[in-house]
Amino acid sequence: MKTLTATLLISCLDRRGIVAKIANFVYDHGGNIVYDDQYTDFSAGLYFNRIEWELDGFTIPRDSIKEAFAEVAAPLEAQWQLHFSDTVPRIAIFVSRQEHCLLDLLWRHKEQEFNAQIPLIISNHPDLEKTAVQFNIDYYHINITKENKLAQEAKELEILQKYQIDLIILAKYMQVLSDRFIDQYPQKLINIHHSFLPAFIGAYPYHQAYQRGVKIIGATSHYVSSELDAGPIIEQDVARVTHRDTVDDLIRKGRDLERIVLARGVRLHLQNRVLAYGNRTVIFE
Amino acid sequence: MKTLTATLLISCLDRRGIVAKIANFVYDHGGNIVYDDQYTDFSAGLYFNRIEWELDGFTIPRDSIKEAFAEVAAPLEAQWQLHFSDTVPRIAIFVSRQEHCLLDLLWRHKEQEFNAQIPLIISNHPDLEKTAVQFNIDYYHINITKENKLAQEAKELEILQKYQIDLIILAKYMQVLSDRFIDQYPQKLINIHHSFLPAFIGAYPYHQAYQRGVKIIGATSHYVSSELDAGPIIEQDVARVTHRDTVDDLIRKGRDLERIVLARGVRLHLQNRVLAYGNRTVIFE
Amino acid sequence: MKTLTATLLISCLDRRGIVAKIANFVYDHGGNIVYDDQYTDFSAGLYFNRIEWELDGFTIPRDSIKEAFAEVAAPLEAQWQLHFSDTVPRIAIFVSRQEHCLLDLLWRHKEQEFNAQIPLIISNHPDLEKTAVQFNIDYYHINITKENKLAQEAKELEILQKYQIDLIILAKYMQVLSDRFIDQYPQKLINIHHSFLPAFIGAYPYHQAYQRGVKIIGATSHYVSSELDAGPIIEQDVARVTHRDTVDDLIRKGRDLERIVLARGVRLHLQNRVLAYGNRTVIFE
Amino acid sequence: MKTLTATLLISCLDRRGIVAKIANFVYDHGGNIVYDDQYTDFSAGLYFNRIEWELDGFTIPRDSIKEAFAEVAAPLEAQWQLHFSDTVPRIAIFVSRQEHCLLDLLWRHKEQEFNAQIPLIISNHPDLEKTAVQFNIDYYHINITKENKLAQEAKELEILQKYQIDLIILAKYMQVLSDRFIDQYPQKLINIHHSFLPAFIGAYPYHQAYQRGVKIIGATSHYVSSELDAGPIIEQDVARVTHRDTVDDLIRKGRDLERIVLARGVRLHLQNRVLAYGNRTVIFE
Repeated sequence: MKTLTATLLISCLDRRGIVAKIANFVYDHGGNIVYDDQYTDFSAGLYFNRIEWELDGFTIPRDSIKEAFAEVAAPLEAQWQLHFSDTVPRIAIFVSRQEHCLLDLLWRHKEQEFNAQIPLIISNHPDLEKTAVQFNIDYYHINITKENKLAQEAKELEILQKYQIDLIILAKYMQVLSDRFIDQYPQKLINIHHSFLPAFIGAYPYHQAYQRGVKIIGATSHYVSSELDAGPIIEQDVARVTHRDTVDDLIRKGRDLERIVLARGVRLHLQNRVLAYGNRTVIFE
Repeated sequence: MKTLTATLLISCLDRRGIVAKIANFVYDHGGNIVYDDQYTDFSAGLYFNRIEWELDGFTIPRDSIKEAFAEVAAPLEAQWQLHFSDTVPRIAIFVSRQEHCLLDLLWRHKEQEFNAQIPLIISNHPDLEKTAVQFNIDYYHINITKENKLAQEAKELEILQKYQIDLIILAKYMQVLSDRFIDQYPQKLINIHHSFLPAFIGAYPYHQAYQRGVKIIGATSHYVSSELDAGPIIEQDVARVTHRDTVDDLIRKGRDLERIVLARGVRLHLQNRVLAYGNRTVIFE
Repeated sequence: MKTLTATLLISCLDRRGIVAKIANFVYDHGGNIVYDDQYTDFSAGLYFNRIEWELDGFTIPRDSIKEAFAEVAAPLEAQWQLHFSDTVPRIAIFVSRQEHCLLDLLWRHKEQEFNAQIPLIISNHPDLEKTAVQFNIDYYHINITKENKLAQEAKELEILQKYQIDLIILAKYMQVLSDRFIDQYPQKLINIHHSFLPAFIGAYPYHQAYQRGVKIIGATSHYVSSELDAGPIIEQDVARVTHRDTVDDLIRKGRDLERIVLARGVRLHLQNRVLAYGNRTVIFE
Repeated sequence: MKTLTATLLISCLDRRGIVAKIANFVYDHGGNIVYDDQYTDFSAGLYFNRIEWELDGFTIPRDSIKEAFAEVAAPLEAQWQLHFSDTVPRIAIFVSRQEHCLLDLLWRHKEQEFNAQIPLIISNHPDLEKTAVQFNIDYYHINITKENKLAQEAKELEILQKYQIDLIILAKYMQVLSDRFIDQYPQKLINIHHSFLPAFIGAYPYHQAYQRGVKIIGATSHYVSSELDAGPIIEQDVARVTHRDTVDDLIRKGRDLERIVLARGVRLHLQNRVLAYGNRTVIFE
């Protein structure tokens, strides 16, 4: 199924007839629906829908779909996004010194697991520049101190704009971003946290896990929000540990978790399968 | 969401407009859709749909829905089932000597995990009659030998009919059913097999697993088909084992798997979330 | 291997020759070692050992082993326990209103998963008395209020003494025990907490998990210490959840986790496979 | 604990006093034991032991330990291996066209997860030579046909000898090795099979898994023996799949499993933690 498709991601207050209204928008204009899943959060009274259809045979010209659907969405007071399968989002990866998540993302990209371009890597350290060079990706070393943070972030935002970045991945970027920065990329900033959130928020989660004597460690990929490590969770996974595992063993085992959990989160986002509301996510798998 | 609902489970050849046609059937008659999920198997060219809506406000009288939808389904040449949420299916549990799966099902039933009645237990051994008595369930001891098998199965079929059984659960029933029996309950016969199918088909799977030196064991709940342990899989799960685990340890660890995997399979079936085709299942979760 | 054995659980400061000293104690007196595992926590400088040998052929009379080993242990300043495989520990189960963990423990006991007697159930509610009756176990309903807590706990301690209880299992006992109570049963009080500790400490962990939007829930069995939900963890496990799972679904899925994680913790303890130090445990599997 | 150590891996018929005899060999010569774990397979009557001690202070010169222990081992008719922690085994990786396992191994090697050298890559295809070049590893393209197989294997064996290879990793090498080849590297040939063995032996396991409609897929790392995919299993792991996953999805999800399961197997072997007997393994973790 590599035909050209459009995907709508919609959320609104739950009300009678939404499913049919949206399906009919596609059907009445000759669209062949290839994916349609909806979810209703009854306690919150909210409706969520992901619907994908082939553009081949669809009678509304591609450039007019947005406008046409706006008329359907307006009376529903819906929030919605429209995506086309031939759009290739542009990703910037933020890193510090650890290479494993970065390398893993770049390999997966090479293996075509991600429908995306990765033109930009930004780091507060110079260490990983040679990796960027090897993959022909531009690398910016922008050091961050308490004093220069806001100025440097302004510089980063400028670069992101210049590269027309759609999604930022914090691949073990060991800096807390300012709210001002975060606000520029709502639900377009994915972080990997090396614990099973909400356990072990903040720095040194593996050391915290060791101290607590847990029998299982975890990793969490989530959208970044202004509260530290409290944004909507996209994906989590865990691994068993024993009393024999030192902090170094937790770090080693955790690298595998981090790579996989971050990659799954990124892939779900790129396939337009994630809708966040409050600090929860709906995952249309 | 404990309002009265109707649920359609539909499969047919994939064709343009199916999603909207079915949603419109509900919408045009004032139904409020509370669940709608579809899946297309592109390689097989098949379309699957589960749609559930509230009967409150639905303008087709409950008794006429079947007839009304038949008109929608006919041109699609669809196979379909219609279920109402206040229907309480009647279950018969088949057992031999092991109690754990039976007890687990009865506890879950008591905890209201299953929307069902359990009026009947049939066994080829007398051992578990006291459990049946304790839960006020009728118990039939019908011994099976090579010679009497067909005659005894005929007796069982008669009892099943008398009790108006909708679903048979083989909860560690250590007899192979005849094709004639199986054909009477297509996709209404759920078995638990104590291995990660298709590994270790047939008898003594834990002994086989021990001999093979596996590091993980499993259990599988599946619909029974005429080929042994080859019916459509509903659910599987696994547990780690080590070289220290004896066959007895595998059996003990396996009991937990069997209980959980069987219960999940039964619950999915009772919630009308399973569509089987060939030896595959679509699970609408 | 159902021969009579003795098991030593030892911890002390790590020093040269400990392994051989302890193995020789057994060997020099004709004991056949059937299990010997040691662990050294290098960062803490601590040594842990579990050694089990057959009493058949051991030249020290059973009643003198304790005294004899004391001489080996004294210069090592070791903490140690000696257990015989024909000792059958006596368990008291504390419950409130939920039955699933209690029933599960009783069923496993019947299936001989636990080498133990269960003569006593204590509850702050009358609800589960009929379960106790059914299994022929004495049941004490001891209600707890803010005002009567210490007095009632004194009564409980008296009953526990009278029944010569070796291990207390809190099987969803929804009361916090006083330090005075806890101090009477150091590492002989096992609790099941319905979260992946240290996430969601305290009341309503499933509600907390739902609010946080986690993708995985967990359960933890641990020794009770004076700090709430902070005692040494014996076992943990997890289960996947999705956005579709309501709080009720989390509670239902969690019941399976709680049953299994508690049972595993209890079994490890009864087999003398757990050594706790600080808030960590060594598990000799 | 980065001091120099010796490790003995021993297996023999179970008999009284073995534990003490081996521990005393170390203790009597002033060795500080840092790891000692034993396992007895009572059904087979076999004893297995891994014991590791610091060479610092050990009174037998390093070069004489082998000879000295041979005297202990002879009366036990034991099979045993002696390893020193400063020995760096030399690995050859065999690949075909798929890069993910190879790259993963090389990256882990760079991250120092493996105590080993990797001087050699052999492939029946030219595709991955540039990866070898990039990591400064010699690459031999040795094409295999039905006709030239034995001759080419002879060439490979020659190269392996020249490079003094201690361990061969088949990292998705899509050729069946001859028995003659396998016999040269008993328990020194680790393969990754992309299924949960013994399910789906042979070619196209993901296609087989898709056809069977399983809900979980797996991967297995094992020593290669003359029977296809039947050698002793070192490690296995699994991942959930759904009806939505196509064969391509299984392949993609499987890549993550293969990388991790192979890496774990290799690491366990390199740390001298694996003892194989028959088609089972003892893993000293």
